[in-house]
Amino acid sequence: MTLAIAESERVRGTTSPNPPVGCVILDEGGDAVGFGGTQPVGGPHAEVMALRAAGSKARGGTAVVTLEPCAHHGRTPPCAETLIEAGIKHVIHATSDPNPKAAGGVEVLRAAGVTVESGLMEQEVSRGPLRAWLHYARTGRPHVTWKYAASLDGRIAARDGTSQWISSETSRKEVHGLRAKLDAIVVGMNTVRLDDPALTARDAGGMPLPHQPLPVVVGTSDLPEGAKLQHTALHLRTHEPDAVLAALAERGVVDVVLEGGPTLAGAFWRAGRIDRVLAYIAPTLLGDGPAAVLDAGVSTITDAVRLTVEDVTMSGPDLRISAVPRT
Amino acid sequence: MTLAIAESERVRGTTSPNPPVGCVILDEGGDAVGFGGTQPVGGPHAEVMALRAAGSKARGGTAVVTLEPCAHHGRTPPCAETLIEAGIKHVIHATSDPNPKAAGGVEVLRAAGVTVESGLMEQEVSRGPLRAWLHYARTGRPHVTWKYAASLDGRIAARDGTSQWISSETSRKEVHGLRAKLDAIVVGMNTVRLDDPALTARDAGGMPLPHQPLPVVVGTSDLPEGAKLQHTALHLRTHEPDAVLAALAERGVVDVVLEGGPTLAGAFWRAGRIDRVLAYIAPTLLGDGPAAVLDAGVSTITDAVRLTVEDVTMSGPDLRISAVPRT
Ligand SMILES: NC(=O)c1ccc[n+]([C@@H]2O[C@H](COP(=O)([O-])OP(=O)(O)OC[C@H]3O[C@@H](n4cnc5c(N)ncnc54)[C@H](OP(=O)(O)O)[C@@H]3O)[C@@H](O)[C@H]2O)c1
Ligand SMILES: NC(=O)c1ccc[n+]([C@@H]2O[C@H](COP(=O)([O-])OP(=O)(O)OC[C@H]3O[C@@H](n4cnc5c(N)ncnc54)[C@H](OP(=O)(O)O)[C@@H]3O)[C@@H](O)[C@H]2O)c1
Repeated sequence: MTLAIAESERVRGTTSPNPPVGCVILDEGGDAVGFGGTQPVGGPHAEVMALRAAGSKARGGTAVVTLEPCAHHGRTPPCAETLIEAGIKHVIHATSDPNPKAAGGVEVLRAAGVTVESGLMEQEVSRGPLRAWLHYARTGRPHVTWKYAASLDGRIAARDGTSQWISSETSRKEVHGLRAKLDAIVVGMNTVRLDDPALTARDAGGMPLPHQPLPVVVGTSDLPEGAKLQHTALHLRTHEPDAVLAALAERGVVDVVLEGGPTLAGAFWRAGRIDRVLAYIAPTLLGDGPAAVLDAGVSTITDAVRLTVEDVTMSGPDLRISAVPRT
Repeated sequence: MTLAIAESERVRGTTSPNPPVGCVILDEGGDAVGFGGTQPVGGPHAEVMALRAAGSKARGGTAVVTLEPCAHHGRTPPCAETLIEAGIKHVIHATSDPNPKAAGGVEVLRAAGVTVESGLMEQEVSRGPLRAWLHYARTGRPHVTWKYAASLDGRIAARDGTSQWISSETSRKEVHGLRAKLDAIVVGMNTVRLDDPALTARDAGGMPLPHQPLPVVVGTSDLPEGAKLQHTALHLRTHEPDAVLAALAERGVVDVVLEGGPTLAGAFWRAGRIDRVLAYIAPTLLGDGPAAVLDAGVSTITDAVRLTVEDVTMSGPDLRISAVPRT
């Protein structure tokens, strides 16, 4: 399953609105003989890619896959049937398909005499490569990660507005790697006015990475003349988070990072449309300057937005905190 | 040494201005035969306590001690000589004495034919039970830990000023345990006006712990009539951090926690008088309300106060971050 997850990660960001699934085929003796990840929309699913790589060695073997194989006739034939035809005898999958149209793969497989084991490394997959897609499949809305960089005292810039760079080079590189696996990056109009970001994913040498997320600017005014995003960004003239998400879902966007600023982040919090927080906390103090979020709709301590910390790691000298709202 | 550190921790908070040293005596065969920690001022040092417990078994044995044994005649005879007289053949110590008056113990021991090993678990001791005292011995100033509890977005209260409780019960209990090992807790006059704290160290059942730190209030106005601290606190009518620290050093205070508020914390930052940060970050968002520190003297990003994170742990649902200013 670890290898199937790696396949899943490898194609992440290139498959939306389809899930970035990974699959490994083991032959009868248990040796890995084929690897595959979901291809871009219209292309084959992970199981088909892995079966093709395995060829006749798949017969009598096992398919290890991050998501329950699909059972429906979409742009491609159902994977459950393809696995049966290839002579697969065992299927091990991590997560189940929450989409009633596609689900039922397990039943189809079992009816054909294939043994199925469900739930192996479920958490790793559902918090990892399939997190955004599972959320999208359940709610119909893209998954929103609010990402920000702040000082230990919660400031995203100094008194005079300077903010380059609060977080370390290590963290900034990590963010570029993350961008390359995303569908879209959303910012507010003021961030464009003040920072003029390009929102591209670049490697350590500054070269664009192969997959680029869609840059999105939210605001009713026009994009500033000459801004780096003027001709590349999707400009949404609204202040409503749900209108933003609907427009993105229409374009097949599943995995979104909200990069602020604090006004737009506040609006997403008030609407309850943040599914994960990714905070890069630099070990610095500013003692003044704008805070990470403005008006989350909280006026008294008992109304505080409560989160659960999923993970804390160091990113160079910075803390990297992943947290999710408590439900 | 682990056992000597435990002895050190056991007496921490009760020995100032002397260091809370721990000592373990091993007999000739290497078995632990005596434990001891420094007694309150005027009382015996750790080595003497451990030798007394060991009795004649100390002869030919080893003393394991967190600080270099002292060589000077103070209120008590020098420990180096006491160890020699007891027939100790080996001394292992973690840290060295930065105080020129007391140092020289190693030379005295070696001159008497005792073998001395220095630096064992030096970091554990110098960041642990002897941190404050080593700072005090080097600078003449008490060691200041700035402790605060904030939300992930750096707020210490909600928009309406409510703040009970930002941090979890686990963190609050931990703070009470910490207080019981301190010499003094310092707060600003506004914290007294608004929160009316008692600043006592209590156990889980609300009962006062045996050792209580000295509560200190900094501000030029009078303490509010009827405040819990009115008759218990040392009231310092100044705004100068160095005046506060001098007044505390005079009283034999070595280990201080600054518990805010943000105005006083800002003044200590501007004066460069914070030696460690202990932040309890609750996994909540407030989006409004006062920040943890006000005016640290930083106006642009390149002037940010830079810290090094020493340690991050979970305290119940909260993050507990220990950091020190970069030198
Ligand atoms: N450290 C970090 O992680 C980070 C990340 C991003 C930004 N920043 C900083 O954030 C600062 C900018 O933040 P900001 O809060 O001023 O601006 P912002 O959130 O980027 O943008 C605010 C603008 O977005 C539009 N908008 C969209 N939805 C809105 C809503 N629901 N309510 C109100 N306005 C909405 C409005 O533009 P229209 O007037 O056009 O409608 C508004 O003026 C910059 O200094 C930047 O450096 C920091
Ligand atoms: N979450 C936490 O960890 C935490 C901890 C403590 C407090 N708090 C919160 O902090 C808030 C109070 O903070 P605050 O910033 O208003 O007050 P503060 O820092 O507690 O006290 C400010 C007062 O201290 C005196 N002072 C001492 N040195 C000063 C200096 N160098 N410059 C200016 N004044 C100085 C002044 O009193 P005089 O006018 O008498 O001279 C001033 O009015 C409360 O809401 C409390 O709940 C939170």
